[in-house]
Amino acid sequence: MQLNELETINNIENEAWQVLENSILYYKGRPIGTLAAYDPSVEALNYDQCFVRDFVSSALIFLIKGRTEIVKNFLEETLKLQPKERALDAYKPGRGLIPASFKVVSINGEEHLEADFGEHAIARVTPVDSCLWWLILLRAYVIATNDYSLAYQPEFQTGIRLIMEICLANRFDMYPTLLVPDGACMIDRRMGIYGHPLEIQVLFFAALRVARELLICQGNQDIVEAINNRLPLLCGHIRKHYWIDISRLNAIYRFKSEEYGKAAVNLFNIYVDSLPYYELDKWLPKKGGYLAGNVGPSQLDTRFFSLGNLMAIISDLSTESQSEAIMNLIEERWEDLVGDMPMKICFPALENEEYRVVTGCDPKNIPWSYHNAGSWPVLMWMLAAAAVKTKKPQLAEKAFEIAKARIYEDEWPEYYDGKKGRLIGKQARKYQTWTIAGYLLAKELMDHPEFLPLVSFDKLPPETISRACEFEVGSLDPYMSL
Amino acid sequence: MQLNELETINNIENEAWQVLENSILYYKGRPIGTLAAYDPSVEALNYDQCFVRDFVSSALIFLIKGRTEIVKNFLEETLKLQPKERALDAYKPGRGLIPASFKVVSINGEEHLEADFGEHAIARVTPVDSCLWWLILLRAYVIATNDYSLAYQPEFQTGIRLIMEICLANRFDMYPTLLVPDGACMIDRRMGIYGHPLEIQVLFFAALRVARELLICQGNQDIVEAINNRLPLLCGHIRKHYWIDISRLNAIYRFKSEEYGKAAVNLFNIYVDSLPYYELDKWLPKKGGYLAGNVGPSQLDTRFFSLGNLMAIISDLSTESQSEAIMNLIEERWEDLVGDMPMKICFPALENEEYRVVTGCDPKNIPWSYHNAGSWPVLMWMLAAAAVKTKKPQLAEKAFEIAKARIYEDEWPEYYDGKKGRLIGKQARKYQTWTIAGYLLAKELMDHPEFLPLVSFDKLPPETISRACEFEVGSLDPYMSL
Repeated sequence: MQLNELETINNIENEAWQVLENSILYYKGRPIGTLAAYDPSVEALNYDQCFVRDFVSSALIFLIKGRTEIVKNFLEETLKLQPKERALDAYKPGRGLIPASFKVVSINGEEHLEADFGEHAIARVTPVDSCLWWLILLRAYVIATNDYSLAYQPEFQTGIRLIMEICLANRFDMYPTLLVPDGACMIDRRMGIYGHPLEIQVLFFAALRVARELLICQGNQDIVEAINNRLPLLCGHIRKHYWIDISRLNAIYRFKSEEYGKAAVNLFNIYVDSLPYYELDKWLPKKGGYLAGNVGPSQLDTRFFSLGNLMAIISDLSTESQSEAIMNLIEERWEDLVGDMPMKICFPALENEEYRVVTGCDPKNIPWSYHNAGSWPVLMWMLAAAAVKTKKPQLAEKAFEIAKARIYEDEWPEYYDGKKGRLIGKQARKYQTWTIAGYLLAKELMDHPEFLPLVSFDKLPPETISRACEFEVGSLDPYMSL
Repeated sequence: MQLNELETINNIENEAWQVLENSILYYKGRPIGTLAAYDPSVEALNYDQCFVRDFVSSALIFLIKGRTEIVKNFLEETLKLQPKERALDAYKPGRGLIPASFKVVSINGEEHLEADFGEHAIARVTPVDSCLWWLILLRAYVIATNDYSLAYQPEFQTGIRLIMEICLANRFDMYPTLLVPDGACMIDRRMGIYGHPLEIQVLFFAALRVARELLICQGNQDIVEAINNRLPLLCGHIRKHYWIDISRLNAIYRFKSEEYGKAAVNLFNIYVDSLPYYELDKWLPKKGGYLAGNVGPSQLDTRFFSLGNLMAIISDLSTESQSEAIMNLIEERWEDLVGDMPMKICFPALENEEYRVVTGCDPKNIPWSYHNAGSWPVLMWMLAAAAVKTKKPQLAEKAFEIAKARIYEDEWPEYYDGKKGRLIGKQARKYQTWTIAGYLLAKELMDHPEFLPLVSFDKLPPETISRACEFEVGSLDPYMSL
């Protein structure tokens, strides 16, 4: 490596760290999170808040660097914001929820935290993913510090239990998946991801695994039993019903419809005319595949969603061969999914009338922009983690080099637009914290694969045993043995 | 009236009654419901079942005719089918659900009831409306017989409580409305009615009112308190956010979008480009209005759904002036909403690309057919009830005359197709039970308005008091005083 090249790299990393430092949010003198963006040139709007979802990337890099205090403070303070009582007023957040974001406000000179559970958000979307990410982060903290005592504290045990209660509440539908309204995750606008979208299901799976690891059985037998029941069913359901590859597409393509009764093969009554089967026939590599974006009645959303697919690999929700197939797909369809900036949030874009109908004419989500197939650098760390886990680190390296070549000069935008991701996002903020943290985190995960266990999971053991208790599980779905 | 005309009427009614008799389902020698259709010329498929939703029309006409036993048997037997234990297996129906349908099966010569909670249904849709209709029917029985003791039996109290528990379960979203997957009601296929569709919300409102009337407070204080809190909020929410008339359309038309914070006017971030505002400008009568089909993030479904709007009038969910406006709309847009067969299930149809995207290319729901703006005679009884309640019986008479002219000759089809409803439904079964019952019931409600209270509700009292206990309620939304 040339000396001046090394200097440039150092410059980039130094600046990244400097901006990350500047984004740290302090509360009563203690660091408790990071602001969504720290761009002094524009008005704050809602970027003066710490978003739970956004903070995950920062938190992981802080944990890796031994700066565990900020993560601990974050976990403790957000836990205090979790409603502990049953909300009788239907406009109040439900018991167990973790807010989408919070900010520090001063009242008579004293600092308070003000949480937002979606009441202030544009379109009043519900941040279902917050409580799931919170659990994933709690486990990362415990692994990084080996400080299980934090999770075993009564407040944390209650917090975990309440999240599980709201996720496992009695409900109308009969799937192991979680029913959510549209826009309940990173894509927090109407994008046709209502019902049982992949991203939520993958995070739900990871959250269940965290709870199973950290929840003390004593006093929680009912929840533990429910988790033990749900995990293999959810896992089998996603592996079976969400999977798309050329062989599965062949099966779907010849599905009969309108089948009635238990023997139905086309369980969700998918009409093949609703699928872009001719495009998929061309796009799917021989050895590639991926998990569909959403499955519901007469609905199979064949868009590729990166977060869901990458986190499925990381959390071991996909089988080993499915994980390989997903990475193969990314490699073979590199120009579509990575292009000139890693990586597309989803692919392809909703266009024309479909864009109009599905997004409700959202001008921020025009085709190939923002959530509608824009490119989000934050996803780089998930790509790196998935690449390391599947032993394809060269893919992460390649993506990283592409980003490195311009992300610093572009001043760390939140997202990029266009089919190849060469346009800085139409409304993207600069110095977006999770862009920076995602970049640094990707680098760390590539350089130090030993940090992967912070976020990754091993194979779901046939006997799901918590550290704190033993439990027998019943028969497992055949898909579990794949 | 001419003698031969009277004879024709008698012939029609006699046949209707005969077919209704033939459709009665017996279980261990006792009548417990009606089959969906009794068309000896075609194979049964799933029409050999008693659908809870379908039976409501038959049940009401039986109650009016003093044949209360079949309704009592139905209520008792379906209550036994309700799962009473928490379902740990995610593929099992949740505690509190009432099945979509059931049938009598013989095992070793002994009869059993086999319930379907959607596991056998095409596309595995969830029948959320079943438990809501069940409550509405329980109240109708109690009113018809004045036999409160049935509802006060411990089994029934538990049943009511369990339905309320599943409806009022802790949840992610922060609206008083109920989040459901697509196709969870009479429209049991994918039709863009995921999230918070009107039909479910209206039935939920009625169900809450029933539970409030019939649930004994002792031992149920928590549920009663939750109902008391929910009722006014739900009522205010629907009256405000679902209402569309020309003045509201004017407001929406000039909405700003992307508003952040509590002061946002465009709460759901609706983009006016997503609305057919130019069509509505023409279609909305000066004094007419209606409740939108669905409201969600960047979503305002401006289709007119008949069941939701009519039941809103009947259950007193809409304000008096809103109810009048809905009936005005029906009168002014008679050709669209009634045409040659009362009445359209919704209007207008989804067409072209929108049909493709929203229904997933459902060949049964092609434009102006079946659920996608087909005409359903069963809705006639709701039209009659709403007309009687708003003192516009002439509208019901007019609709009835239109149906009478052909429904008998057409052999009581389930639905009609086309813009005017002059085509017998493409896949419609003949001798459909709820078509027949709906016809007879409409007639009874017109001839004997004193039966209206079986299904209708008075104004929501500011102090919601059950027959069985007293309770104080907090401040009510300003919309409550309209």
